[in-house]
Order: sequence, then C-alpha cells, then structure tokens
Amino acid sequence: MVELLPCGWKREELMPRLALHVLTDREWSRGRDMQTVAAAALAGGATIIQLRDKQATTRTLVEEGLALRELTRRHGALLIVNDRVDVALAIEADGAHVGQDDMPVALARKLLGPGRILGVSAGNLAEAEQAVAEGADYLGVGPIYPTRGKADAGPATGPALLQAISARYRVPLVAIGGITAANTPEVIAAGACGVAVITSVVAAEDITAAARAIAEQVRAARAAAGLTGEAT
Amino acid sequence: MVELLPCGWKREELMPRLALHVLTDREWSRGRDMQTVAAAALAGGATIIQLRDKQATTRTLVEEGLALRELTRRHGALLIVNDRVDVALAIEADGAHVGQDDMPVALARKLLGPGRILGVSAGNLAEAEQAVAEGADYLGVGPIYPTRGKADAGPATGPALLQAISARYRVPLVAIGGITAANTPEVIAAGACGVAVITSVVAAEDITAAARAIAEQVRAARAAAGLTGEAT
Ligand code: NI
Repeated sequence: MVELLPCGWKREELMPRLALHVLTDREWSRGRDMQTVAAAALAGGATIIQLRDKQATTRTLVEEGLALRELTRRHGALLIVNDRVDVALAIEADGAHVGQDDMPVALARKLLGPGRILGVSAGNLAEAEQAVAEGADYLGVGPIYPTRGKADAGPATGPALLQAISARYRVPLVAIGGITAANTPEVIAAGACGVAVITSVVAAEDITAAARAIAEQVRAARAAAGLTGEAT
Repeated sequence: MVELLPCGWKREELMPRLALHVLTDREWSRGRDMQTVAAAALAGGATIIQLRDKQATTRTLVEEGLALRELTRRHGALLIVNDRVDVALAIEADGAHVGQDDMPVALARKLLGPGRILGVSAGNLAEAEQAVAEGADYLGVGPIYPTRGKADAGPATGPALLQAISARYRVPLVAIGGITAANTPEVIAAGACGVAVITSVVAAEDITAAARAIAEQVRAARAAAGLTGEAT
C-alpha cells in the first residue's frame, strides 16, 4: 500500500530524504558564512538543509534562502525554512518546519498548501498527536540528548520518546538534540528515519567529514533496522 | 475614471481608510496590553491598526493578530500586519506592510495575492519608485519628523518628500514619523491622505482622546485640501 503524507509525498519516498537534516546556525558556525557551511554539509551527504536564522531581518533571510535554494537544488537536497512560512513560500523552498512557539500547525499547513512539506517539533506524545492531527508530514522529535545548539530546547527525552511515538503514529520521525555519529545508531533503532544536527556538523572543523560520518551511521543503522527506500 | 490599485481597491475608496493608522508597539504602550491600546485607538477614530511586535514569537503574533482581527472587524477598521506576510495570511488580515529590511515588495505582492493591501515604507524617491513598480498599494512615507518610536528610522525628510512623491505618483501616501495633531495639517497639505502614528497615540495617557485629536485634524485638513471620499 502506498501511504501518502499530507504534502502529497509518498511516505517511503520522503523517509530517505530525511536521513541527515543540517540546520544552519550563524552562532555555531565559527564565522563561516551560511553558504559555505551548507555547501560543505551537502558535500558530506546532508539530505536536507534547514534555514534557521532567528536574528536576521526578513530581507536577509530571503537572500540567504535564495542562495540555499540554488545550492540545494544543485545537490538534489531538500530545503526547509524554520518558522517563516512566508520565506518558505517566497523562495520556493520544499517546505517549512514549525516549533511550538511558531505558526500553529493547522495554519502553517493551510498556508503551505498541499504541495510543500511541513515538519513539526514534538517534545512529548501530546505534541506529536496534535501535530499529526493538524497535518505534519514529519516530526522533529527531541531534544533526545542534552544539547547546546538550541537555547530554548526543553529537557532531554532520551530515545524512548522515539519508540513511544513510532509505536503510535506512522509519521516519519527525525531525531534532534545532541545527535552525534556515535549515538545515531541508537536513535534510528528507536524509530527515527533520520537525524537533525546543528553543532555536531556546523561547529566541526571539517564540516564535510562530520556530515559524512553521521550520514554513514544513518545509512548503516537504517539498513540494520530494515528500512527500505535507501538513498544512494 | 476609477483607478484600481494593485489590491483591487478603488484608489478613492482606500484613501479615506488610510486616514489614521495606529501601529501597536509594546515598548511604548506603558504596560497596557495590545488589545486595550487598539480598542482605545479605534474608539478615537483610528481607521487602520498595524500589528507590529518585533520581539514576539510567531505563535504570539498569531494570537495577538486574531484578537485584533475581531476587534478591527467590529469597528469597521482595517488590520495590517507589519513585515510578516505569513501572519497576515494566517489571521486573514486586510494586508501587510513591508519596510526596506522586510520581504522584497514583488515577493510580498505575489504571496498576498491580488486581494490584500500591500503597504511599503519609502524614505526617498528611489524607494517610492521601486515600491510603486513592484505593486505597492500605498506608501508609508518618512520619517517626516524626528521620531523616537522607531529605533531604526532614518533621518527626518520633512514634508517636502511627500510633495515630491505625490507630484510623480498617484499611489496614496501616509505620512509617518513624529506625527502629532499639530503637524498633521502640514503633511496632509503636502500630499498625504493620512498619517501613521505610534507614540503620539499609544504612549498617550488618554489614547482615545489622542487618536480623536489627530483624526479630527486629518479630516479637517483633507477637506481643506479638497480630498474627496471622506469617511464619516
Ligand atoms: Ni558540491
């Protein structure tokens, strides 16, 4: 049976595209500009770049987004915009990601229309349930481990939250919060189809090598978990 | 001849609706909440409320916006959202207002569609020309006088900028920056069809009285300038 997500993607086709999600973050990028960081992450196997720049003006976000749009297209990667549904639409991103302080999920779904991907942050079962009911295409679940990348993240949930959500919902899950190459096998085994990272990639001295190490762990752990539809 | 603006409004119908534009501003509201401030301004004759809250999360902006949407409908006033085109669409505002650091005008026009009003800030003739070319329905021109309401405002232009723009373009102009009841006649005489205020209304002890005094000056000055289509 082919399962369609609210965005119209087939679940089995979106899942491999969610393997390695890299969030841009000016603060953790050691002075390297966003395009340099994103290009290096894509070279290492990032499958999604998420544009997140809470301090930028809308004009700057649009400019950064247009540059990332070209870069991600060239690499066959997805581009997702954090929080700003207007910027996602303006730069023709593949979708938007909203957290609990952002646009309510049902409104974001309505503005994005049926053709774009909507990711939603979930830190507990209740948030996961509401996000699924309101039209999320994937959930960013966490923080799984303690993290320094997001100042506003809640307490770490551990991989058990991935197990609990994946036992109840068919929505693809992306583990976020303190993810490294070392703990990637554990979160994939717990039910994630991919991971989202900030510091372990964008703060690395060799961004490409850091991304490649995590992407390789995702690939191996997905194969071990019997997940189909591997990107090559 | 009926002139249609890009939003589909007739120019002569939009102009009276632009008479008194009050921008919400948490910082200058002396601890009064946004709905209290907006309700008092509407009672005094504000014709547009512009939601502006640069510090708020998107979730908070949407909540504030939905409350203002109800309030402005009840008063027959317009609701415009500053910068955030996504929030404007989500709360079904009448339009959005963008400045030079916000969404580029052509993109904002595209996202808003043909049915919503797009206001654009212009601080000189070149900005006015570009805004008109890209689909602005009205221009917020200024800062006309020195102002403390917007930390990022440029140097004061004086009413001469209104004269220069209105001599070249048919787009309705709203004077902004340091506007009071005392200088309102001067900016209307110079070519504005209305004024936009922050501190002179939201920081007033009696917001309703402050709004009423300015609205009365706009009405009188518009009549003196022979502008038609007065709201009553
Ligand atoms: Ni490359």
